[in-house]
Amino acid sequence: MYSVCVRDHFMIAHSFSGDVFGPAQNLHGATYIVDVEFRGETLDEDGIVVDIGRAGQALHAELETLNYRNLDEEAAFTQKNTTTEVLAFEIFERMAARIRDGSLGAAATRLHSLRVTLHESHVAWAAYEGRLDTSAAS
Amino acid sequence: MYSVCVRDHFMIAHSFSGDVFGPAQNLHGATYIVDVEFRGETLDEDGIVVDIGRAGQALHAELETLNYRNLDEEAAFTQKNTTTEVLAFEIFERMAARIRDGSLGAAATRLHSLRVTLHESHVAWAAYEGRLDTSAAS
Amino acid sequence: MYSVCVRDHFMIAHSFSGDVFGPAQNLHGATYIVDVEFRGETLDEDGIVVDIGRAGQALHAELETLNYRNLDEEAAFTQKNTTTEVLAFEIFERMAARIRDGSLGAAATRLHSLRVTLHESHVAWAAYEGRLDTSAAS
Amino acid sequence: MYSVCVRDHFMIAHSFSGDVFGPAQNLHGATYIVDVEFRGETLDEDGIVVDIGRAGQALHAELETLNYRNLDEEAAFTQKNTTTEVLAFEIFERMAARIRDGSLGAAATRLHSLRVTLHESHVAWAAYEGRLDTSAAS
Amino acid sequence: MYSVCVRDHFMIAHSFSGDVFGPAQNLHGATYIVDVEFRGETLDEDGIVVDIGRAGQALHAELETLNYRNLDEEAAFTQKNTTTEVLAFEIFERMAARIRDGSLGAAATRLHSLRVTLHESHVAWAAYEGRLDTSAAS
Amino acid sequence: MYSVCVRDHFMIAHSFSGDVFGPAQNLHGATYIVDVEFRGETLDEDGIVVDIGRAGQALHAELETLNYRNLDEEAAFTQKNTTTEVLAFEIFERMAARIRDGSLGAAATRLHSLRVTLHESHVAWAAYEGRLDTSAAS
Repeated sequence: MYSVCVRDHFMIAHSFSGDVFGPAQNLHGATYIVDVEFRGETLDEDGIVVDIGRAGQALHAELETLNYRNLDEEAAFTQKNTTTEVLAFEIFERMAARIRDGSLGAAATRLHSLRVTLHESHVAWAAYEGRLDTSAAS
Repeated sequence: MYSVCVRDHFMIAHSFSGDVFGPAQNLHGATYIVDVEFRGETLDEDGIVVDIGRAGQALHAELETLNYRNLDEEAAFTQKNTTTEVLAFEIFERMAARIRDGSLGAAATRLHSLRVTLHESHVAWAAYEGRLDTSAAS
Repeated sequence: MYSVCVRDHFMIAHSFSGDVFGPAQNLHGATYIVDVEFRGETLDEDGIVVDIGRAGQALHAELETLNYRNLDEEAAFTQKNTTTEVLAFEIFERMAARIRDGSLGAAATRLHSLRVTLHESHVAWAAYEGRLDTSAAS
Repeated sequence: MYSVCVRDHFMIAHSFSGDVFGPAQNLHGATYIVDVEFRGETLDEDGIVVDIGRAGQALHAELETLNYRNLDEEAAFTQKNTTTEVLAFEIFERMAARIRDGSLGAAATRLHSLRVTLHESHVAWAAYEGRLDTSAAS
Repeated sequence: MYSVCVRDHFMIAHSFSGDVFGPAQNLHGATYIVDVEFRGETLDEDGIVVDIGRAGQALHAELETLNYRNLDEEAAFTQKNTTTEVLAFEIFERMAARIRDGSLGAAATRLHSLRVTLHESHVAWAAYEGRLDTSAAS
Repeated sequence: MYSVCVRDHFMIAHSFSGDVFGPAQNLHGATYIVDVEFRGETLDEDGIVVDIGRAGQALHAELETLNYRNLDEEAAFTQKNTTTEVLAFEIFERMAARIRDGSLGAAATRLHSLRVTLHESHVAWAAYEGRLDTSAAS
């Protein structure tokens, strides 16, 4: 299996609902350093698993829609705790949609799965990994 | 699959037995930077795979029982080389027991596996990953 | 010159005032990874420039008063942009006060300066460094 | 599953062929920081999954044959884009051969797979992972 | 003293002339991860030592003129070894010129020095630091 | 001012004497990741501040004399706490001697100072920096 991974980041405010979160129930914030790993079994004729330039641009474009926001006020996250796990899944879904709509180019059709990791500090991170539902493209 | 990972460290002395270890047969020591990755397929109603606060506290408590010790004199490791691999497995076993005894809270029952990585320097690490034998809890 | 440095972090929400900040005028947030470097010319009889245990505890205690807050609502920062530079200076001032009030122990009296660095992402950080005004202790 | 990983690096020049590469079609270069993860299910009687000393030496020896070269002029890569993915696979193949020829010692016979990761910058990496075809050793 | 630092990278081919360089006399290449630290004694009324957005854009623009090149063929480096030290100084000079020509905005006039660090691998880096000759702006 | 820095590591056992050290009075150990920064004002005709190859070899040779040892039993450290600060100074002294005896080559005569940093974990480090007493060479 081949992987290519690109890194970027975004900075947001949010609060959590639920006793388990303790002081994180207050409005606070985070820098998330995001790694998106694109995975496939084979390379194309150019020798790549995905166009890394396009992959980085697509990730940056998605993160721009979250960057410098208060997630408590974003429609996408109404009634939802935007934990690191939830945000990792959200970015997985968005990058999967970008792959399906062709934003990452023809090479990306050979990808079968993604792993999205969000580093919230030097001592904690969360990730979501899953298969790309290619049939959903139809 | 969702993952949450926390990082901590401990500092020990030890020696190894066996020609393969060369100069590491001498009494020496190491700082181990420890990453424990908690894995499950689903999130609970709060949007978490595990209570990261409790996870970090449980890891810290376990590492405190090893920290600032000479492992050659610890009963847990009699007649055993405390290689990085062996220590990764040891911490896996201890964290699995913590999950089974409820120390990590109710959310942790959805975890199915752990990966424990010990960084011994900037150029070497070892890891153990395995499934949580939940039936062993009974 | 000797230095000892400890690392910790805090996570806050804030917004900035001024056109120069562009989208960062919105309420957003950050994880700050904080390095505090304690500097002196000599070691004490134990061979240390500062008690690293106390240094880490003092830093952690200060960061806890900022952690999980919306800095826009904190009295300490009224009418002030809490830029990374401003926060680095704030933590410098607080750690200097801790040294003067004896919280870091007797060894700390030999310290002559501090450097406080706040990493706001993997691609940007800010710092403040300055001398400890020991006469201000009287 | 146990893993042991060693890190080293090499520095090369190369160019790529294909419109997808944009300015990287020019002769340019890279530092690749290489992580090779050796994986097996069990430890030997010494408590190791592989002799980490020999593993590091074998990796270093292989990277020396690539280091300080212009890959466009190396016979091994004729008519081939030496993308990060392609180089990760190349190093996988070479390390697998080293394991089969006994260079990593007896413990290495218990290894079942490798993961080779090449970091080309602080924001991008590629990897190849695969099983060791032990029958190919006969 | 306040500092703000931004990080970016570039990837080049080059060769060195001189026995001291051994195999690095061959055409090879490197990824350089570049940190530029901007330093001044005071903050402006917005609470910044430099507009970090403009600083990052200016650095990126300069690195683009070097990225994906064979430095042996660049006019700027004729008859010169483009060692990591030499490149650190080159980027220092270019960023100093950007500050003098106003590209970094009004806040940058309070800067008095820069430190440019180029990481060539995980085990080696070089830097150049110096004062900004503000009189040279006239 | 130009700097070149090389990184290496060593792994030792030791114990400390003095109440301030708490549990670190026990025999324990550490991995120290060592950065040695070589500083001078000018480059030689090859464009280097020091021969980085020789610098790395000299550092490695010095660290080998400490690696895999119990420092409590080393003559060099009798009656002395081998704190991170003390070890940073020790390595400074040894590298300074190597420069004076010519081990780092002719270019090294232009060096005026060194900074030695020892990382003992991901959250703590210590350093010693000082001028090279070149007259001591005579």
